[in-house]
This record gives sequence, C-alpha cells and structure tokens, in this order.
Amino acid sequence: MLTIHGMSDSGNCYKPRLLMALLGRPFRHVEVSSLDGGTKQPAFLAANPNGKVPLLELEDGCTLPESNAILCYLGDGTRFVPDDRFARAQMLGWMFFEQYSHEPQVAVRRSLLVYPQMRAAATPQRLADTLAGGHKALAVMEQRLSGAQWLVGDAPSLADIALYAYTHRAGEGGFELADYPGIRAWLARIEGLSDYRPISWLPGA
Amino acid sequence: MLTIHGMSDSGNCYKPRLLMALLGRPFRHVEVSSLDGGTKQPAFLAANPNGKVPLLELEDGCTLPESNAILCYLGDGTRFVPDDRFARAQMLGWMFFEQYSHEPQVAVRRSLLVYPQMRAAATPQRLADTLAGGHKALAVMEQRLSGAQWLVGDAPSLADIALYAYTHRAGEGGFELADYPGIRAWLARIEGLSDYRPISWLPGA
Repeated sequence: MLTIHGMSDSGNCYKPRLLMALLGRPFRHVEVSSLDGGTKQPAFLAANPNGKVPLLELEDGCTLPESNAILCYLGDGTRFVPDDRFARAQMLGWMFFEQYSHEPQVAVRRSLLVYPQMRAAATPQRLADTLAGGHKALAVMEQRLSGAQWLVGDAPSLADIALYAYTHRAGEGGFELADYPGIRAWLARIEGLSDYRPISWLPGA
Repeated sequence: MLTIHGMSDSGNCYKPRLLMALLGRPFRHVEVSSLDGGTKQPAFLAANPNGKVPLLELEDGCTLPESNAILCYLGDGTRFVPDDRFARAQMLGWMFFEQYSHEPQVAVRRSLLVYPQMRAAATPQRLADTLAGGHKALAVMEQRLSGAQWLVGDAPSLADIALYAYTHRAGEGGFELADYPGIRAWLARIEGLSDYRPISWLPGA
C-alpha cells in the first residue's frame, strides 16, 4: 500500500490525501511535522534532502517529494488529468502558479498567524506583503473562476485539488473571500464532489 | 510558428529558448520585460492575468504561462521527458523544487543585486535570507549531482533545463560554487550538449 508521510494540518499534505479519497484508493498516513523537527530528522532527510512534507513512499520503498509532483504521479491516467496535451500543460501551469504565486502568500500568511512557532517571523512588513501577494493570486483565480466552473476545461483536474488545499483555508490567513464569488462557488463545487473528504480526515478514521 | 514572449535576460524565459534550441525547433522571440512595465500592459494582462513572462503563444493564438509548464508542453513526447511514470514524476518534483525552493532564493538574490529597479527591496535582511535559502537549495542539488550525471535517471530531462537556468548564473547572486563540485560538473555537462545555446542567444541571431 502507498504511504503518505505528512503533517495532517498542512494544505500541501492534504492535496494527495484528497486525491486518494476522490479516487477511492487506500493508503497509509504517517504523521511527520515540520513544526516539531520531524522533517529535519536524519532518517527523513535521507528520503527527502529538502526536508519537507508531504513525501510519498511506494510499496518498493522509493520516495517522491513535492506535493504537486505527487499529485501528478498519483493522478496519472485518471479522470483528474486531461487527455489533451495543451489542457494538461494548462493544468501544470496552475500548479506551478500555486507553488510560486499562491502558497508562499496565502498559505504562509496563515502559518504566520496560526502557528506559535512562526510568531517571530510574523513582522508587520511580512504580514502586509503576504496580504497583498495573496490577494493578487486570488484575483488571478477569480478572473478564471468568475466565468468557468473549473480551472482547466470543464472538469475538475489536479489543478483544482492543488489550489483548493490552501484557498479553502484562506480565511485563517486573514483573506476575506466576500469579493471572490467565483472562488466561493468553486470551493463549494469541489466540496460537492463524490467522495470529497475534508482536511481533518485521515484514512481509517 | 510558436512565439515565446519573454525578457531575454531572465532565466525563466531562457528555459523554453534553451529547450527549443536543443530540439532544433524554430520559434519567434518577442521581448517583453517585467522591469519596464511590459508585463503590466493591458494587452499582456489579457493573455496572462498573473503578469509574468515567459508566455508561450501557439499558432492559433492560445497562450500558456509558467516557464516550467511551457517546458512540459514543448517537451512532451521528446527525449527530455522520461517514459517511465515514476521518473516523470521525479522530473516534475525537481521542477516544483525549482520554483518553490530555488528560484525565489537564487534568482531573486541575483535580481536584487543586478537590477537597479530592485535596489530598494535589497535590504540586508532580504540579502541574508536569500543567501541562506539559496545555499540550502544548492546543497540539495549537490547531494544528487555529487553521485549522478543528471537530476533524474541517466539522461538530461526538463528538470536539468529548468534548474540550469538560474544555477549557471548563481555567481551574479553572490553564490560561490566552489563548494559544489557536482553542480559545476553538471553545468559543464549541459553546456556540452549538442545544440546548447547560452542565455544571450536569440533566434535569428
């Protein structure tokens, strides 16, 4: 059985859990936290020198880091990856957008506000910068979602799963979604998918 | 013919140019700079609401943002994408690493030092943070490249092109590569590829 090493409260770690739930595939969850030094232990660093979760472990012991690369591996050949070459590249475009323009703002601002361990880093400048950067990313999403049901084509893809992870908790980062009706409708659409599971869900629970 | 809208001096914009050169495919280059407001013009924002280059334009006018998604589109079905599903995911893992852990440190520190427009943002704290973060990313690459010729498997892939773009100019960001012999040998290996072109190269020149 596949194992996902991850921190249950992390949006990045939720992404592969949500995909596995949507696909109805069993997996094992092993809790590893970046907040208590778990990702800096020698055994973990041997598997992922970058010291980050999630980390996917295959049946043969091979490991794969990077939440969105894990989504691509698990989603390969499923209904969450478009057949069309250009649509597939558009999906990846949103996933790179998520890691470069969205997560470092929307998710990081949440972590600055939510985790006591991050308090020293939560300077007024940092909070202002991530607020502005996060709203810029949300506006880019809104532009698409105000006129479309899904980020790519007319069906949910890995891009929707990747961007759902931190967008649905943007409020905890101080991002008011009232001005983003397209995003709010899209969040509800994802939550209405058959076999959807919330971030609090863990396999076996 | 395909068009790549980009800033000739940008590593992100160099990635698809280098891939097209290695593939021996013709393309058109249109200079658009983020330093003179070119990426914030209404016509450009209509094509990429995120206001970033590079932007790929197909023959039919469809556009695709995100340098690494463009690499995936252009590289699909070529020798630069592994056939094996797990190796393909590993390639994407390095590409997400590049955008999350490498570019915001190694490339951003270079831009802070090189571009007069960035001088106000080049605070001592920012320079110290990006120096530490950049060396952390380079150490992760060195761990792989001290024992392997390429980032994934035994042949160059899109991951090598993506990470070459800013690593080969890390010195301009104040990153001394003397302690990274694996990276230096890998840079030379890429520069020895048939049809390799430097960042200064533009089609037609």
